[in-house]
Amino acid sequence: MNPIYVWDTTLRDGLQVPGVGLTREDKIELARRIKGLGADYMEIGYPAVSDKAVSEIKAIVEAIGQQEDSPILTVYAQPVREELEKAYESLEGARHKMLHVVVGASAQQMEQKLKMTKEQVLFQGMEALAYAKSLTEMVQYTIEDAGRADEEFVLQMAEAAAREGATVINLTDTVGAAVPEVYGALFAKVRRRLDTVDPAILLSTHCHNDMGLAVANTLSAVKNGAGKVECTVNGIGERAGLAALEEVAVALRYHQEYYQGETRIKMNSIPKVSQFVSYVTGLSVQVNKAIIGANAFVHSQGMHQKNASAYEAFSPVEYGVHKQDVVINAENATPALLRDVLENILDYHCNDEGEFRQIDSKLKLLIQKKKQVYLHDLYFLLQRNHYVQKDESIVYELKNFKVISSDEFPSAWIRIRKGSETIEENSYGDGPIDALYTAIKNAVQMDFHLLEYKISSVSKGKEALGRVSVLLEYEGEQYYAHSTDTDTIKASAIALLNGINNCILSRL
Amino acid sequence: MNPIYVWDTTLRDGLQVPGVGLTREDKIELARRIKGLGADYMEIGYPAVSDKAVSEIKAIVEAIGQQEDSPILTVYAQPVREELEKAYESLEGARHKMLHVVVGASAQQMEQKLKMTKEQVLFQGMEALAYAKSLTEMVQYTIEDAGRADEEFVLQMAEAAAREGATVINLTDTVGAAVPEVYGALFAKVRRRLDTVDPAILLSTHCHNDMGLAVANTLSAVKNGAGKVECTVNGIGERAGLAALEEVAVALRYHQEYYQGETRIKMNSIPKVSQFVSYVTGLSVQVNKAIIGANAFVHSQGMHQKNASAYEAFSPVEYGVHKQDVVINAENATPALLRDVLENILDYHCNDEGEFRQIDSKLKLLIQKKKQVYLHDLYFLLQRNHYVQKDESIVYELKNFKVISSDEFPSAWIRIRKGSETIEENSYGDGPIDALYTAIKNAVQMDFHLLEYKISSVSKGKEALGRVSVLLEYEGEQYYAHSTDTDTIKASAIALLNGINNCILSRL
Repeated sequence: MNPIYVWDTTLRDGLQVPGVGLTREDKIELARRIKGLGADYMEIGYPAVSDKAVSEIKAIVEAIGQQEDSPILTVYAQPVREELEKAYESLEGARHKMLHVVVGASAQQMEQKLKMTKEQVLFQGMEALAYAKSLTEMVQYTIEDAGRADEEFVLQMAEAAAREGATVINLTDTVGAAVPEVYGALFAKVRRRLDTVDPAILLSTHCHNDMGLAVANTLSAVKNGAGKVECTVNGIGERAGLAALEEVAVALRYHQEYYQGETRIKMNSIPKVSQFVSYVTGLSVQVNKAIIGANAFVHSQGMHQKNASAYEAFSPVEYGVHKQDVVINAENATPALLRDVLENILDYHCNDEGEFRQIDSKLKLLIQKKKQVYLHDLYFLLQRNHYVQKDESIVYELKNFKVISSDEFPSAWIRIRKGSETIEENSYGDGPIDALYTAIKNAVQMDFHLLEYKISSVSKGKEALGRVSVLLEYEGEQYYAHSTDTDTIKASAIALLNGINNCILSRL
Repeated sequence: MNPIYVWDTTLRDGLQVPGVGLTREDKIELARRIKGLGADYMEIGYPAVSDKAVSEIKAIVEAIGQQEDSPILTVYAQPVREELEKAYESLEGARHKMLHVVVGASAQQMEQKLKMTKEQVLFQGMEALAYAKSLTEMVQYTIEDAGRADEEFVLQMAEAAAREGATVINLTDTVGAAVPEVYGALFAKVRRRLDTVDPAILLSTHCHNDMGLAVANTLSAVKNGAGKVECTVNGIGERAGLAALEEVAVALRYHQEYYQGETRIKMNSIPKVSQFVSYVTGLSVQVNKAIIGANAFVHSQGMHQKNASAYEAFSPVEYGVHKQDVVINAENATPALLRDVLENILDYHCNDEGEFRQIDSKLKLLIQKKKQVYLHDLYFLLQRNHYVQKDESIVYELKNFKVISSDEFPSAWIRIRKGSETIEENSYGDGPIDALYTAIKNAVQMDFHLLEYKISSVSKGKEALGRVSVLLEYEGEQYYAHSTDTDTIKASAIALLNGINNCILSRL
């Protein structure tokens, strides 16, 4: 069995989704969980984007990259000296690190984006690779849009990079336009060419999903010599996203004989990491998504239920990829159960007994309200516990509210606090949320613009938790915030205040 | 270029999603739209399930199956005489019809579900096929779970069915466990075997998506001799669903040279049919779903936006698969625009001028409330217009309501009407929805149980439409209902009353 290395790029390519904003704390927590999933490589950002990006990368390196068991950490860079320098600096302190140079290879890339000839592209790439190698030992050389590029040119670039000392050569199907057999044949040729230089050079694949073929193309690359796959959790990413890590990992395990390879992915961590990604990004997974959708292993037809294995390729329980839908209620809510769920299912480890007791008492309150508490409800408790250390004197907090929904006269009254100051406001509106948001806007007197307001349920039952997300624009910058509560009106108020607080905090 | 026939099974295999209930009218409207999409075959139900299923199939046949331009209509049947008889009867009156016999072929199917030997399975299948052929000319013989079955047995079954006169032989990857190359090789062998009997026999594929490979397996089958593909819109279906029609159609068009085939699918109908499916089923499509997700063609990175074609395999506008996101507001809301949007984008044709004027005046009201009206908002108007012909004397209608959300004392007051009777109720609750639902339950005095309550936004902005779905259990049966309004509290009230009305109406 050959090792198939998994390069997770959820934190870089995955987060290229319009309108998704993760806080720094969310990113660190996500990195911690992806490490726990068993990724061999993790691409954790693109430093050249901004100073904020650099500082977040450094925070992730500090949180997960210093121990011997750290995955190989890497970041994205275009083939220019400044980007590589920034990349190197941002990874400082990482126990295992790799630089990553990305070079466009298709006619579309060279003509429209780079405005360079093949020779110029090749030369620039080799210069960048040499420079990267002068900074650190391990370097990945990515041939971007290889799926559409001239085959001979791809072979030439791969061979040149191999001779220049690239540790990994990665071919990307940047626009998701490859066909598995054709893409596989390209890998076979590149593999043979690399073998003439050094069989130890790792060949890698990175596939986008624009025609629903990302997983198939990834597998075809593996069958034809790729020893490393780039993926994101839940397949998130720009446009139609990338090859979904969970689908690739399960398919490789199920078809181990055929692909003769195995990953280090911990199957039983898949559901929790997947749920966490969908929770922090607000990108819900459709019910019929393979492996991780709510219905992925649910049979509806009577005859299918009776004979599950006749209608299932593998047992989700045996693979460990089934979701454990624990329901906590007044009868079973012992501290022992809570501790078990936190540590073994949600992968959440309290800092001390005080924190545990705090969560336990919040849980008891939630049970009173909601009777049945699901895993999603617990995420919400944990999140609130996590992010309370804001400076209380400069942020707004909801104290009391009363919102009247009616067919005649929607109105809202709120009382909010900022430090020692308390503000009350009343307003009417076209609907209850309009009334509420007008009252809040008048209270804080900030000229923000609400770009998006979204609402969704994250659990079941009539007191299901409603999750409200808002996207604000304030002084030219966008701010994302969310809140979750059994009362969607209350969640709406808190989400907006969270957004306003983000505007304030980012200006300190 | 060879024709690749598309068999849409959204109305049969697609609707096998737990918790999705479509009304008869929804199903008819969906059938009409799938016909408009250019499907060559449509599988519209499984008659043996219930009398209700038979009556719905008949209604669809009446609505779309009687003209010369009708697709070939078909229904599902197990290889037993009674099911085939029922199938034949339910398709009566269809201008073009086909019977469909499904026979399990894998060890798992034969041992666990059928408890039969290979010989028994083969014999039963041939008997059923012969009987089907005695009823009608065109018959599809499906070899279920062919992906996991013994290859020699599949070849034997296919040849036997060909000799018995099957028009189409269909191989299914029932559990989504096939690998494209291996699955393709099976098709090549079956194709060669069929050619020894009759090259005119159509070979077909039906792939499930449990490892994200349904589209790739479908394409591999086409490359190796399949001339017909079975799909569902949005890839909906049990577990992880099936090959998504839109992904298969776009991939075949983009790779026309490679696959040497073309479908009759009208690309520019894809977005509207997809939106309609997600609207009536309540199954939202994830933002990064290929072709039809909200972000499928959205670029977030600055450099990607500037060079869209460097990051897009094809232009969605040129293919006609881009969503036309029309925004109607007070300035542009002319009757001419409304008519254009209804007919050309939403594919909705009013019965008469009266209906058009009704929609127009509802639109004006919605603009007052919401300022910006999106396509989703219009679906909601149309739907309300469509389903008003309930018997007013026996169903409940919301007249007035007032719901107070507050941090202290959530409460609700409602006034509902049934015929000439008016009922008022007050209630408190753990939250506003609890209070509201308790008041409604007390008012109608029916002992139903609320199994699910779900809420989601279907458009943007703080007066975005919220869609509430409920699943009720009443006297052992489940009832699904939904409602959409700018005020989610009001939508919650109406959704529950719709569910209660469904309980009442189904008992007439």
